[in-house]
Amino acid sequence: MEKERIDDLEINGLKIIQNKEYFCFGMDSVLLANFVVSNQSKNVIMDFCSGSGVIPILLTAKQNFSKGICVELQKEMFSLLERNISFNHLEQKLLCQNVDIKETKKIREFLLNHVKREEVDIITCNPPYQKLHTGMKNENPVKHLARHEIACTLEDVFCSASKLLKSKGKLYLVHRPDRLVDLLSIARKYQLEAKRIRFVHPKKEMKASIVLIEYRKDGGKELNVEPPLIEYNEQDDYTEEIYRIYGKEGKQW
Amino acid sequence: MEKERIDDLEINGLKIIQNKEYFCFGMDSVLLANFVVSNQSKNVIMDFCSGSGVIPILLTAKQNFSKGICVELQKEMFSLLERNISFNHLEQKLLCQNVDIKETKKIREFLLNHVKREEVDIITCNPPYQKLHTGMKNENPVKHLARHEIACTLEDVFCSASKLLKSKGKLYLVHRPDRLVDLLSIARKYQLEAKRIRFVHPKKEMKASIVLIEYRKDGGKELNVEPPLIEYNEQDDYTEEIYRIYGKEGKQW
Repeated sequence: MEKERIDDLEINGLKIIQNKEYFCFGMDSVLLANFVVSNQSKNVIMDFCSGSGVIPILLTAKQNFSKGICVELQKEMFSLLERNISFNHLEQKLLCQNVDIKETKKIREFLLNHVKREEVDIITCNPPYQKLHTGMKNENPVKHLARHEIACTLEDVFCSASKLLKSKGKLYLVHRPDRLVDLLSIARKYQLEAKRIRFVHPKKEMKASIVLIEYRKDGGKELNVEPPLIEYNEQDDYTEEIYRIYGKEGKQW
Repeated sequence: MEKERIDDLEINGLKIIQNKEYFCFGMDSVLLANFVVSNQSKNVIMDFCSGSGVIPILLTAKQNFSKGICVELQKEMFSLLERNISFNHLEQKLLCQNVDIKETKKIREFLLNHVKREEVDIITCNPPYQKLHTGMKNENPVKHLARHEIACTLEDVFCSASKLLKSKGKLYLVHRPDRLVDLLSIARKYQLEAKRIRFVHPKKEMKASIVLIEYRKDGGKELNVEPPLIEYNEQDDYTEEIYRIYGKEGKQW
């Protein structure tokens, strides 16, 4: 279709259809998919604000789990999500629900119908970053909703994740470091304790631009701040670790 | 005196007397003194849990301020603190008070008497790190109190700092990264918002071992996560930045 493009995810032949008028995934989603640890084949994973589905699609190649549930509110993004799942022949592995993440009752019903459980082991989320009334105006309304905390605030993410995760289940989030105090303190209100944090710096002498966080529901109060992830080396080339994460061609997301 | 040693701070000829039986300052105090920014000559700085006084003594060489108030509870450490101030001829610049940081009324009286104000511009603190009932037992009681959250919990530090700082005044803390959620969320309860954070990693591929935080009383919700500070390079030698901080001899604190 016009305004669409197909990106190669450079792993297991996976590809993703995106619409240039909507929100296109970026480096942050790829980094989050690489930060997730799921080593039980029975795990059920849920992805909030799934967009075109890049995180769960990448997880099928990188992690061990039985089913992934992709939750997306926007009709236009949801239809792209469904097409991406069938385009990659992942209909057996990834299911999707067109619902607001705040409607946890509906999500529980969906879970019960499709995986015979009401709670999940792992939730991933690349939520809208920008607070309302900040950032560019007059953009496409689908993109606007995906970028801003309109339908979904950070507090909504924690509240719904806490309701849908089993005790000791894990939530993975990618966000902006300038919101770190909110990211840690609001989560704690919902029994989600940060256990692993990794900061991404464009270069080693620059401030962090992205933060990756693993929370554990009902987790103990101890946290690891992992080694910094540096994107570019002194020659302005990707670092080795970034090449490993992005694939051999080191695509610019 | 027996059991005492004198360490050269390698800046402005400053030296510090320490007692090997008590708590001796480490790298964390030196890093904190380097993290502080005080660029107003009228600033009044207060140092909580001052110990032998290494932080305020280093600040006299590195920062712009009028008076420093060193608060120390333990009699033995307090006497060492007084001796260090006179040993370095800093009696005009650094005052000290032998009081519990929780006694904010007494501290305000001291301030009023000595600097004619009841609030300070900047507070620094290298607090006891270990929670009670953790770590080694049967150690010297002076050292035990300096290491463990007995007389002074993290919450006490935030509570007293918030009472003694002027609005928009700054608190600087050095602590362990595994307490990060407490460090950010308890502070917010006391109107202390983290504004700058820097993690120290022994090597670039290792998790953070120390965190430095600048808070602002009544500060806005925006935070910078600064470039990581790496202690050792790939040849197991200090990095250039650490040499700059520790002094040309790169002393092992």
